[in-house]
Amino acid sequence: MTTPVTRDDAIAMDQGDPLSHKRDEFFLPDGVIYLCGNSLGPMPKHALSKIQTSLTEDWAKGLVTSWNTAGWFMMTDTLGDRVAKLLGANAGELVVSDATGLNIYKTLHAAISMRPGRKTIVCETASFPTDLYMIEGVTSLLSDMNVVLEGRDADNIEDLFTDDTAVVLLNQVDYRSGEIRDIKGLTAKAHAAGALVISDVCHSAGAIPVNLHEENVDFAVGCTYKYLNGGPGSPAFAYVARRHHGKFSQPLTGWHGHAEPFKFELNYRPGAGARALLSGTQPALAQVAVSAGLDIFEDVSMEALYAKGKKLSTVFADLIEHNCSAYGISFYSPKDVNKRNGQVSLTHEHGYAIMQALIARKVMGDFRQPDVLRFGIAPLYLRYVDLWDAANHLHDILRTEEWKEERFAVKKMVT
Amino acid sequence: MTTPVTRDDAIAMDQGDPLSHKRDEFFLPDGVIYLCGNSLGPMPKHALSKIQTSLTEDWAKGLVTSWNTAGWFMMTDTLGDRVAKLLGANAGELVVSDATGLNIYKTLHAAISMRPGRKTIVCETASFPTDLYMIEGVTSLLSDMNVVLEGRDADNIEDLFTDDTAVVLLNQVDYRSGEIRDIKGLTAKAHAAGALVISDVCHSAGAIPVNLHEENVDFAVGCTYKYLNGGPGSPAFAYVARRHHGKFSQPLTGWHGHAEPFKFELNYRPGAGARALLSGTQPALAQVAVSAGLDIFEDVSMEALYAKGKKLSTVFADLIEHNCSAYGISFYSPKDVNKRNGQVSLTHEHGYAIMQALIARKVMGDFRQPDVLRFGIAPLYLRYVDLWDAANHLHDILRTEEWKEERFAVKKMVT
Repeated sequence: MTTPVTRDDAIAMDQGDPLSHKRDEFFLPDGVIYLCGNSLGPMPKHALSKIQTSLTEDWAKGLVTSWNTAGWFMMTDTLGDRVAKLLGANAGELVVSDATGLNIYKTLHAAISMRPGRKTIVCETASFPTDLYMIEGVTSLLSDMNVVLEGRDADNIEDLFTDDTAVVLLNQVDYRSGEIRDIKGLTAKAHAAGALVISDVCHSAGAIPVNLHEENVDFAVGCTYKYLNGGPGSPAFAYVARRHHGKFSQPLTGWHGHAEPFKFELNYRPGAGARALLSGTQPALAQVAVSAGLDIFEDVSMEALYAKGKKLSTVFADLIEHNCSAYGISFYSPKDVNKRNGQVSLTHEHGYAIMQALIARKVMGDFRQPDVLRFGIAPLYLRYVDLWDAANHLHDILRTEEWKEERFAVKKMVT
Repeated sequence: MTTPVTRDDAIAMDQGDPLSHKRDEFFLPDGVIYLCGNSLGPMPKHALSKIQTSLTEDWAKGLVTSWNTAGWFMMTDTLGDRVAKLLGANAGELVVSDATGLNIYKTLHAAISMRPGRKTIVCETASFPTDLYMIEGVTSLLSDMNVVLEGRDADNIEDLFTDDTAVVLLNQVDYRSGEIRDIKGLTAKAHAAGALVISDVCHSAGAIPVNLHEENVDFAVGCTYKYLNGGPGSPAFAYVARRHHGKFSQPLTGWHGHAEPFKFELNYRPGAGARALLSGTQPALAQVAVSAGLDIFEDVSMEALYAKGKKLSTVFADLIEHNCSAYGISFYSPKDVNKRNGQVSLTHEHGYAIMQALIARKVMGDFRQPDVLRFGIAPLYLRYVDLWDAANHLHDILRTEEWKEERFAVKKMVT
């Protein structure tokens, strides 16, 4: 076991942190240690002025002309190009639009359309549930498709890749544990079997270096409201590798994805590249919030962020292991920091009450059934001392049995 | 032909207008006569403060807890209940979510799931194109479904209703002409044939009294950014009559529509009532803008609004007919004001240039291919004198041939 750092060490690490200035770009309430950035990223300060301008200038004064003059109509693409750059892809390969689940639906159909005759979808039981629900939605219509799941039909997902596999849907990072999968290696194996790969990057985009080209995935989907700090329920994104452009179809053929939406033609013709994954009109105000989130990534490298994230995660994990193991806390995340996205998830029989006690001390993590305490660690705005203090609060709560207080026992919906 | 009113008459009508105070609730740029409310409604003034609060309090300070404490998570339902009330439906029958096209996709599948064995979808060639594109999307997967269209396969849509008709998709108001269809009568005929009806109320919601119960439609879809003034690209809505709750399925089975989204179950179970039409997470900031738009309808009756809308429309149409007919202008909208939603659409061989000349005079209508000038007439914020002035500008532009100026000839994308 590594000896944990002291609080003074943590403060010194902050003083030497070349990314420490980024914290100032976010609004973070006084005294709160925010470890839910894996669920909803905090507000970039300049999101306020950007959205105010969208309201008082673009909507109020520009009115309908702002679809062109303020660039609203093409924000699916302009934001998409910026996300693409962050994820190692090129302009034209990615659009920001709709919810993640809808993009899963679209890319599943797109992949299946490219592998006629193949009748199997491969996924993980540990997927974020919407992935599985959307597979159900797809197979409810394509009744000859089968679904096989890692964790049900095999222990290792690659054991499920066969010449009947049309598409493999992988989560690059497990939402419960933060564990990183070897997407590049799995994609190579899926391709060797002739299958296509969709990578769900919801919990990796903005947290670890993602390189869609290097990983060689065929499609990807992800959300902008977690580590990309794009605002509550902000539109998600969908990627399709250039080699597949013009070669797939998907059924959510709304007017925004039409090759020439304003021709009002009677028949659908898909737009170019990733635009063929668009469907309906997108919420402009929410898109503007996404742009504010992306601005903050402009002058940092994902490699530097990830390096800091691992160090933050180590400070926290070492303290937990050293101080909390005796109180029934176990690691749910991989102990090897290189195998997780920064996030540290723990289990405890009384995890719910413990999380409530932490929240009462302004340490905001979240709880996932049945017994998982999740702590998202986002290097853009967290300090080493925050992680030290969070671990210390947890230790305190366990040591004093504070979590047994009546007020922490009542269950309520936790997002 | 009715003798048009004078400008003084129009001013007097404004002075006697019991709804004149509503105009003050909107931000409208000085000197602009805004006749594009059928495309994007103007900004309610209090949308600014509502969204600022959502940013500075709910996102910035409440962070992830605002999904519960600020009501974000359930806004699909709370906004839905308010839209339901405005459209003659009950709480629980309508959700605000996604783009209109996606809601068409979902309700088409839902209706088809309730009519097994029936293999025909009936629609109109004059539909807003996304309706037709989404039907293409549906039939791309359900390859045994046929599509028949009024305007291609029959002159009257009811002639297409047979015992093979699963679902009829109707636009309550034609987006080009503003013509109102007899939804109640057509629904009765469709039901007599055993078919279900989806009513697209994009151009009727907030413009004319819509009564989904009285019309007896099975499903409805519509958008919030036109006459409901919910903001650019704001989420649309989907309605399903209570008698069908629990009796349909649709394939966009995202986690937000799950009966218990936070149980993270492996299998999908649809939520109750209209919640089974939900899919993914919705953009909270855009939802808040929708709430601001709906607030403005709280203290007015749709009947009173519609009555004013018809009077506004008459002032405009009478002037056009009297002054502009000699210059090649024809009515594309029904001449009977009771047959249109307020909107007046005209045709002219040089419609594009004429609309550019109007816009240069700050009269904002829009142009639709090939030759249609559209003027949306929204009674919440327009004055009689605005319509008088707009008609007078058009007369002037035609009389002086101002539209022939070089600057009005260049085509660009018009939203």
